Amino acid sequence: MKTAALDSFTRKTASQVIYQIFPERFAIGGGLSSVAKLADPAYDLPGAAKREWDDSPLQQPWGQQFYGGDLDGIAERLAYLAELGVTGVYLTPIFQAPSNHKYDATDFLRIDPMFGGEAALQRLIAALHARGMNLTLDAVLNHVSDQHPWFLAAQAGDPDKRDWFSFRPDGSYLCWQDYGLMPELNLDNPAVRDALYAQPNSLVQHWLAQGVDNWRFDVAQDVGIAVAREMAGIVAERFPQAGLLGELNGFCGSWLTEREQVGGGFHGMMNYWYRTATQAWLAGEIDATQMNAALRDARQAYGLPGLLCSWNMLSSHDTPRLITTLGSAEKARLAMLMQLTMPGVPLIYYGEEIGMEGSADPDCRHTMRWDESQWNQTQRAWLKMLIAIRQANPALQYGEVTVLGDRLAGNALVFLRHTDQPGEAALVVVNLADEPLRTRLLLPYSHWYDGVPLRDALGISPETRMQAGSLQLDIAPGSAAIYQAYEPYANYTFFKPRNCA
Amino acid sequence: MKTAALDSFTRKTASQVIYQIFPERFAIGGGLSSVAKLADPAYDLPGAAKREWDDSPLQQPWGQQFYGGDLDGIAERLAYLAELGVTGVYLTPIFQAPSNHKYDATDFLRIDPMFGGEAALQRLIAALHARGMNLTLDAVLNHVSDQHPWFLAAQAGDPDKRDWFSFRPDGSYLCWQDYGLMPELNLDNPAVRDALYAQPNSLVQHWLAQGVDNWRFDVAQDVGIAVAREMAGIVAERFPQAGLLGELNGFCGSWLTEREQVGGGFHGMMNYWYRTATQAWLAGEIDATQMNAALRDARQAYGLPGLLCSWNMLSSHDTPRLITTLGSAEKARLAMLMQLTMPGVPLIYYGEEIGMEGSADPDCRHTMRWDESQWNQTQRAWLKMLIAIRQANPALQYGEVTVLGDRLAGNALVFLRHTDQPGEAALVVVNLADEPLRTRLLLPYSHWYDGVPLRDALGISPETRMQAGSLQLDIAPGSAAIYQAYEPYANYTFFKPRNCA
Repeated sequence: MKTAALDSFTRKTASQVIYQIFPERFAIGGGLSSVAKLADPAYDLPGAAKREWDDSPLQQPWGQQFYGGDLDGIAERLAYLAELGVTGVYLTPIFQAPSNHKYDATDFLRIDPMFGGEAALQRLIAALHARGMNLTLDAVLNHVSDQHPWFLAAQAGDPDKRDWFSFRPDGSYLCWQDYGLMPELNLDNPAVRDALYAQPNSLVQHWLAQGVDNWRFDVAQDVGIAVAREMAGIVAERFPQAGLLGELNGFCGSWLTEREQVGGGFHGMMNYWYRTATQAWLAGEIDATQMNAALRDARQAYGLPGLLCSWNMLSSHDTPRLITTLGSAEKARLAMLMQLTMPGVPLIYYGEEIGMEGSADPDCRHTMRWDESQWNQTQRAWLKMLIAIRQANPALQYGEVTVLGDRLAGNALVFLRHTDQPGEAALVVVNLADEPLRTRLLLPYSHWYDGVPLRDALGISPETRMQAGSLQLDIAPGSAAIYQAYEPYANYTFFKPRNCA
Repeated sequence: MKTAALDSFTRKTASQVIYQIFPERFAIGGGLSSVAKLADPAYDLPGAAKREWDDSPLQQPWGQQFYGGDLDGIAERLAYLAELGVTGVYLTPIFQAPSNHKYDATDFLRIDPMFGGEAALQRLIAALHARGMNLTLDAVLNHVSDQHPWFLAAQAGDPDKRDWFSFRPDGSYLCWQDYGLMPELNLDNPAVRDALYAQPNSLVQHWLAQGVDNWRFDVAQDVGIAVAREMAGIVAERFPQAGLLGELNGFCGSWLTEREQVGGGFHGMMNYWYRTATQAWLAGEIDATQMNAALRDARQAYGLPGLLCSWNMLSSHDTPRLITTLGSAEKARLAMLMQLTMPGVPLIYYGEEIGMEGSADPDCRHTMRWDESQWNQTQRAWLKMLIAIRQANPALQYGEVTVLGDRLAGNALVFLRHTDQPGEAALVVVNLADEPLRTRLLLPYSHWYDGVPLRDALGISPETRMQAGSLQLDIAPGSAAIYQAYEPYANYTFFKPRNCA
């Protein structure tokens, strides 16, 4: 079970903990109230509803309710994020657009004035980089708003733009899942590729040149494997450190297999597969056989680098919040434990760390609660501890994964993470059964030698020790452990460097 | 989960549906009755029993009961076979021999006069090829009849033939499983190989030159892997399109692993392994864990091309008929569903499509019933539908297979077939339990995207749809589904060609 040597890009990427922000709802810069901020003429739009910060979002007007969040608000809250332990920020779209969500861009090369424009982006980038944090922006390559000047020109018959979309003789056109508001760009047209990623002044390259670190790309199934491969090749020449991540709401093997085999394409994917499995298991819809198999499937099909660079997300602006989905804070904590220990980059949706609840959009897009009296401190302390455990153990960041849980009766997820460094490992056990998990486990790992003591980093499950390739587990119902080895002797070390591969 | 590109030979072979005929019992050419046909002097043999077409076969005289079936009878029934959907015909031996089964050939280079001689073979080949159908003949390389001129000469001490067999000083000789009637050819003797396959006028090459398309070889365990490799190499030079299939009544991994790794040997095998697993599972002798494992074992050991080119058979002239074996027409239909969806070429024994029953030989060799009032129309409509479903979906013909059923509690066979083309896939579920199979299934396949609707091609199980890499199953007890995706939108396609690997 030798781990292929990982390149430094993969290690660096896999060591991240990313925090997702919906910029309109996180914080307002300069200490302004919503009322004060929304006085800005940028919000003087037909149909706009101006709200107070603590108001709950209404169903209508869905995309035109504004609270005033902006990029300076984020930049001013980086100490809060650093204390939690996050290392990077992912923002849903920030390009000029009339809505609160900005997925309906009308100009990809301008930052929306509601969010502070280009200058605010520069201030945010500088503040992030000063703390060693990175920034990921959100790009939609497959479609634009039907109000985008490109589409309006094409619809008007502009010969330069007509072939940027796919019109039929009757005037109908290809659009995302038949939503006429989202006409699909014709990605087979080289001029479209130039505008999106192939030329220096394209969407993708322009903002990387401005200091943005990484891109997240919407709807990878529509962007396509071939486009991702071409784009990654072009971007890597000018921006070799830029991470490129695709969104696919399901299993992502085909998007990453190629990278594993021949290179090219996205570095990682938004790993909804992980979310589906975790939630279905914690909700009792699948048992541990499928849960363990889901992890093994991902490891095999994604490849280790692809899996490590993918984002493990539990909730987002498009889903109910975690506690609301799972129905209990206890299960939400188990989900977080899985998120911080399974291979892949944890993606934490703003507010999950303080136990915010919320059902489907727009309820999951409530403004961030900054009043600490409303925080769920248990949830926050738990997540902070998990991040600290992960960030102290390279095996949890970029280690290989060996799935073991489907070898045991009961209902447990069990896996080992380990790097090439002898002893640098973690054994994760989540027991979802109503019974204790009391069993001997044979562990096919060479560098936890006979007698090595193992301590649960969570401080919950009893200490145990290696016994000739095996250990005794005793995990309470609904409980968990993150076992790590420690050196018990003063004048002896188990983990001698000369055992390095 | 990338499928290695398959060559066109494998795709073509795997797309076949083969119909096995025992020529003496299928049909008589020219509209003749048995009485009229059996007046032919070819049937004037000592001990021959001349029977009427609708008579049931008797135990004795076993090999000398005749009904008069012949090759013209087959040629005249091709419209019937085409309507069913079959694409090729496999005949048990047709070379000159005194018995009804012709496994006791006395001349490999002559077609038996009972069956119409060489001219009738030419007419059959022409009729098949005119319909785009192919012909597979049956060869025995390991042994001959003790009345074969080769053996008679060897036994008489002919120095040219003595070493074609293996005699001991006391006159005894090696013979198949100690049946003295079937002396084993000495396949280590180059002259024997010349006569069987190595020279242009050999058994194998002679008939390929006459227009026969493929060969099925008896008792592969006795022919041997080395002989199969040499023969395949020789045949491929002159007849690159000829398929070579070995018979092995059990697991066939070793016969196909080599082809997968270095090329050579049989293209496929008669997959009795498949029959054993299917029948044992449907009879309740094994549960779904073994059934699912049997399919996975075959995929791993045969390799995908070897598995796809093997024949999945449920019954033959050597076994009881399907309904008789399983005890119910319902279970026979489930078996057929498995036969038409699992990887491998379906091999349908004549009469199974109309629900003929029959216990062990000779009962399973009853003449074909051409009186439609005796047909089981339910069985025939079911098989016709299954063939049509298979032939409309390349994934069922030559797709990769991913076994999933052993991840679920209950007693279900579940597997996915998929090609390299995005969305070209089929999810097959057979629920043998007495309870409904109601569960969430995580599906590690990248190209059924979130929201893709899935319809059961059988029209039995309820429609479902992909949800972030998973789907909800609700399969009734003893029921099944063949889920396929469809495109629900007018102006949007899920399956964009640019996602091809």
